[in-house]
Amino acid sequence: MKAGIVGANGYSGIELIRLLLNHPQIKLEMLISHSTNGENIQDIYPHLTGVIEKTLEDFDADELADRTDVVFFATPAGVSKDLLPECLKRGLICIDLSGDFRLNEAQEYTDWYHNQPADPTLLNDAIYGLAEINRKQIEGARFIANPGCYPTATLLGLAPVLTHDFIDLNSIIIDGKSGVSGSGKKAITGNLFSEVNENVKAYKLGQHQHTPEIEQTIAQISGEKHPITFTTHLVPMTRGLMCTIYATLDQGFSTRELLDHYEKFYEKSPFVRIRPLGTWPSTKEVLGSNFCDIGLNVDGRTRRLTIISVIDNVVKGAAGQAVQNLNIIKGWDEQTGLSFTPIYP
Amino acid sequence: MKAGIVGANGYSGIELIRLLLNHPQIKLEMLISHSTNGENIQDIYPHLTGVIEKTLEDFDADELADRTDVVFFATPAGVSKDLLPECLKRGLICIDLSGDFRLNEAQEYTDWYHNQPADPTLLNDAIYGLAEINRKQIEGARFIANPGCYPTATLLGLAPVLTHDFIDLNSIIIDGKSGVSGSGKKAITGNLFSEVNENVKAYKLGQHQHTPEIEQTIAQISGEKHPITFTTHLVPMTRGLMCTIYATLDQGFSTRELLDHYEKFYEKSPFVRIRPLGTWPSTKEVLGSNFCDIGLNVDGRTRRLTIISVIDNVVKGAAGQAVQNLNIIKGWDEQTGLSFTPIYP
Amino acid sequence: MKAGIVGANGYSGIELIRLLLNHPQIKLEMLISHSTNGENIQDIYPHLTGVIEKTLEDFDADELADRTDVVFFATPAGVSKDLLPECLKRGLICIDLSGDFRLNEAQEYTDWYHNQPADPTLLNDAIYGLAEINRKQIEGARFIANPGCYPTATLLGLAPVLTHDFIDLNSIIIDGKSGVSGSGKKAITGNLFSEVNENVKAYKLGQHQHTPEIEQTIAQISGEKHPITFTTHLVPMTRGLMCTIYATLDQGFSTRELLDHYEKFYEKSPFVRIRPLGTWPSTKEVLGSNFCDIGLNVDGRTRRLTIISVIDNVVKGAAGQAVQNLNIIKGWDEQTGLSFTPIYP
Amino acid sequence: MKAGIVGANGYSGIELIRLLLNHPQIKLEMLISHSTNGENIQDIYPHLTGVIEKTLEDFDADELADRTDVVFFATPAGVSKDLLPECLKRGLICIDLSGDFRLNEAQEYTDWYHNQPADPTLLNDAIYGLAEINRKQIEGARFIANPGCYPTATLLGLAPVLTHDFIDLNSIIIDGKSGVSGSGKKAITGNLFSEVNENVKAYKLGQHQHTPEIEQTIAQISGEKHPITFTTHLVPMTRGLMCTIYATLDQGFSTRELLDHYEKFYEKSPFVRIRPLGTWPSTKEVLGSNFCDIGLNVDGRTRRLTIISVIDNVVKGAAGQAVQNLNIIKGWDEQTGLSFTPIYP
Repeated sequence: MKAGIVGANGYSGIELIRLLLNHPQIKLEMLISHSTNGENIQDIYPHLTGVIEKTLEDFDADELADRTDVVFFATPAGVSKDLLPECLKRGLICIDLSGDFRLNEAQEYTDWYHNQPADPTLLNDAIYGLAEINRKQIEGARFIANPGCYPTATLLGLAPVLTHDFIDLNSIIIDGKSGVSGSGKKAITGNLFSEVNENVKAYKLGQHQHTPEIEQTIAQISGEKHPITFTTHLVPMTRGLMCTIYATLDQGFSTRELLDHYEKFYEKSPFVRIRPLGTWPSTKEVLGSNFCDIGLNVDGRTRRLTIISVIDNVVKGAAGQAVQNLNIIKGWDEQTGLSFTPIYP
Repeated sequence: MKAGIVGANGYSGIELIRLLLNHPQIKLEMLISHSTNGENIQDIYPHLTGVIEKTLEDFDADELADRTDVVFFATPAGVSKDLLPECLKRGLICIDLSGDFRLNEAQEYTDWYHNQPADPTLLNDAIYGLAEINRKQIEGARFIANPGCYPTATLLGLAPVLTHDFIDLNSIIIDGKSGVSGSGKKAITGNLFSEVNENVKAYKLGQHQHTPEIEQTIAQISGEKHPITFTTHLVPMTRGLMCTIYATLDQGFSTRELLDHYEKFYEKSPFVRIRPLGTWPSTKEVLGSNFCDIGLNVDGRTRRLTIISVIDNVVKGAAGQAVQNLNIIKGWDEQTGLSFTPIYP
Repeated sequence: MKAGIVGANGYSGIELIRLLLNHPQIKLEMLISHSTNGENIQDIYPHLTGVIEKTLEDFDADELADRTDVVFFATPAGVSKDLLPECLKRGLICIDLSGDFRLNEAQEYTDWYHNQPADPTLLNDAIYGLAEINRKQIEGARFIANPGCYPTATLLGLAPVLTHDFIDLNSIIIDGKSGVSGSGKKAITGNLFSEVNENVKAYKLGQHQHTPEIEQTIAQISGEKHPITFTTHLVPMTRGLMCTIYATLDQGFSTRELLDHYEKFYEKSPFVRIRPLGTWPSTKEVLGSNFCDIGLNVDGRTRRLTIISVIDNVVKGAAGQAVQNLNIIKGWDEQTGLSFTPIYP
Repeated sequence: MKAGIVGANGYSGIELIRLLLNHPQIKLEMLISHSTNGENIQDIYPHLTGVIEKTLEDFDADELADRTDVVFFATPAGVSKDLLPECLKRGLICIDLSGDFRLNEAQEYTDWYHNQPADPTLLNDAIYGLAEINRKQIEGARFIANPGCYPTATLLGLAPVLTHDFIDLNSIIIDGKSGVSGSGKKAITGNLFSEVNENVKAYKLGQHQHTPEIEQTIAQISGEKHPITFTTHLVPMTRGLMCTIYATLDQGFSTRELLDHYEKFYEKSPFVRIRPLGTWPSTKEVLGSNFCDIGLNVDGRTRRLTIISVIDNVVKGAAGQAVQNLNIIKGWDEQTGLSFTPIYP
């Protein structure tokens, strides 16, 4: 199967290159980048020297339709909404890593992204590619909205208690911590080493664009719509994302009981790993891999559940989950091309 | 005034050296370290070359009483409970940076520190040195239990809403992020660069020994005792601590109104800085200084208040607040010797 | 083919696990660790959860001979010198990642390692596993002394000018910079995050134990023995090693001419990548991979050549080169199981 | 005395603010920034909240002459060459932190900075402010070209052997390692956290603009002009700079003898600290201070001297040395306002 990457020049784009080069069913055919078209990818990213020889090309839907079967959009918000429909109508499988097709309501996109939404008639065509939860809908799909990094960690952490109605939906608080690669390769002051290093920074309080995406999926799983509190922090590392999730339990479960429940819930999900009682995952333990690791703690004094959920934001939070979705679409083993052991230390 | 430091060899100890060398009223007379006694401090810490020439001495209460007026205990948990009473009975001003005298109930110490508590009759003699809140009791005191780093950031962040009964005391959740210096100079695997770098790690969920300290002070300020949820995280930086604090508001305050309230509450506290609407502090913005910077956000959708409170854990969270307490005890200007501009970048 | 790892608990050991799990010809059979024998590897390294289930075992040469075909020694200096001969005499292929068998002269080991050397009769049996240079001797060998991290980067950087006598052998100066993982998982103060972060530190000037290893191989390649100047620095990163190598050219080569010479010299070495004129590699560009990237600059004003050579110290500088050596021994494609694209960013 | 800072918005500019606020003889009167004029400095740098209240102003030489006595130029290359002469002719003391007036030969500036040089008639008026070496010329001067960061560390490291003709001037090799703050607050891809973190990068081989500055001063001290080899590396830290300097000794000195010589050479220079035999400084040991720490090693086998010289690039390598120069100009104690103990850890 032949693949193209639109936005091959960004961090999610080059991670897709790393993953797809390792995929036995995929031939990487086209690398698309508007801003650097005509350049050789290894001149921009010397780590790809001898690994892949490709010239970046400009976007051309006909060309993509001629030469590829699946197109990944690793583009900033506001780009795929215009380009992806062109590929879709030419029969290509489209997997969008941006937020353009994740929200069902166009108005929510406008409110949180402060930008023009995609064609509303297309919004409901996109399957939300949270692989562990939506496997059935993803099988055979042609159009995937790949989840955001924070929603992935949050929703995988919450799903087992949402589906079983174990928590007070009004009590959900998500405290997110992310490495800087999550904000991409933009040359802005706030992403400079001297500004980020030896620093923890809270940002976009009450305004993060992943908020409606999380709320929408919580509503779909639980059947009820409730606002959440979601706070994001930038921590001085490149890759890695942790969501510390707080919720009040409806009943007096022990940590042990919930761990068993989580183990069972994810027993057919090879990328979700539940940590033993009294231990919690750290972000480095999934670095470079498609794993989402989850640990739990119930505080009997407050009847509050704390969930620690970690991913590599560039893999499970972006490129890895995109490839996982393609595997599910095609009926391949979900782990095909994704069996990376985390790099440690 | 002559000062001695017990535990001069640890990170809080050497920070006390830095601060006291800059203090116009203090002569640093004795550096005490049991493990390295007899060594020159600059052989252990070459950054002190030419700054201070002192041989580390073993603890001797009589010697301290002869040569000093005030003793700072920058010792690990479980040490000052035995040594400090010896200095106290010899008439020295004692400022304890460890947790040995912070909790009023000996049983709580046993429960959370898993260690023998100090003599219960002494526990109530120690004034809890949260300078901005307990100034009156600190003035003229001789025995200070200097607050922990997480409690300092948390309680300064919460005090203005606690004193005015603005929040539901059952709703308090504290998500703490700390640099590694907070766990001292212990050579343990978990503190190695290769383990900490490019990593965020949650630890001691539901078991952190600062929990009862925070709860005790919340109860003292608000008049009611409630359990909190408190989660701590290690982030890959040396200095700096942030507490992201969540609480449900009893009334429909706006962020603007609460910011005004905080400004007024701290108008006579030069070390607390309130950030303007829509901005929040980051840890680097207080690095090397005694500031505690606070930012707020009210989410109208959930009526939840989020408080961002940051300190340099080694300064305001330890050595700096200890010196501030001495200033208050002696009636000196609170900022004496502490007017450090944060180092940026 | 079945493999065992002695010292599986250290950083080189777990990297061998990552690489061998990815190797199509290898079954990882035994993980040996004296200090943690009886524990499950995933309890010590949670990143291996679901990736490998193995109990660490104590060293037993008979057991190894029964169950494995090749044994990797990822042990600290001074361990394999006693254990490896036991495996060798039982017919196992032995690959030693430590320095115990790299030096031909026992006295040099004593002088630089300050420790008892291995049995001198065995020292000449070990093939020095610098794969790109010693391929012929490695083919079919049973006993490999895997090169040190600094020697690997240095010697691959120098080999093309050494074999052709292009430089003054008395002029060689090597300025090495390494991440902290190079010093292993030892819980010592000097490796603590708070000591390493935001710091560059020179260490062991004139005394680094890799000095005689570099000098010995330079002498073997060039035919002449000369002392080098070798200075090592610790930089605040986990993985990655750069050697900046200075040497005076005997003749007036241009950078362009030397680059062509290097390209040709390494044309059959898939893991060595030569950078184009005017560009030089950085350590991150090889992270997680077995590449050694090299860039050159000739300063016409001083007739001095500067060589920049980078590796991932845990891969090409340790575990990766060990696997590469096994591939060569067995006549497999040199890249088998080692085709990792560097992780970027 | 009243001071103005041109370029107050950059990293050297805000460091000057930190230092001058601590200076008992200086009142900080004007902060000049063309790009952010009209803004409040604390809105751009919240760490200055409550520390200084000042609106940034546009450059106006008359205004500066009216309101200040000394002007610091913390501007990028190519700016002060036009602005500074305006201040000079109005009788202001001018201290230029940029490279515009450091080179005596206009042609060298053109060759290495690839930019228009300053008025050649002014180049010889500027006193090169390497405080420890040029104290006599600096006393009473009105126009200082403050040295670059690499030249400061290099020249202080070399001066004692240059003045006494102890080394072969053709043998000097300087391997520099710098934190990222050295390249300022420019929002360029190469300075992004994701690109710099976990990375060591060599840059500008044979082309660094500090090369002619170092060569010119070596020639002034030694009386002979020789080209040097100078290689610079970016390491993943914010502040700190180390130069590892290699030179062949003309005579067979021991490390001990040279250390004594260095101690004596710098006995009246409070900011230079010589490390004891067998120890070498690390960059963190001078962080936030104006110290330059130096360690030595003679390798008897090669008769080569290795000098390790470290500074905080933003203090001794920029703002701190500028203030030190003002102290010398005015005849104040050289340490006035500069007695910062390094921040550790």
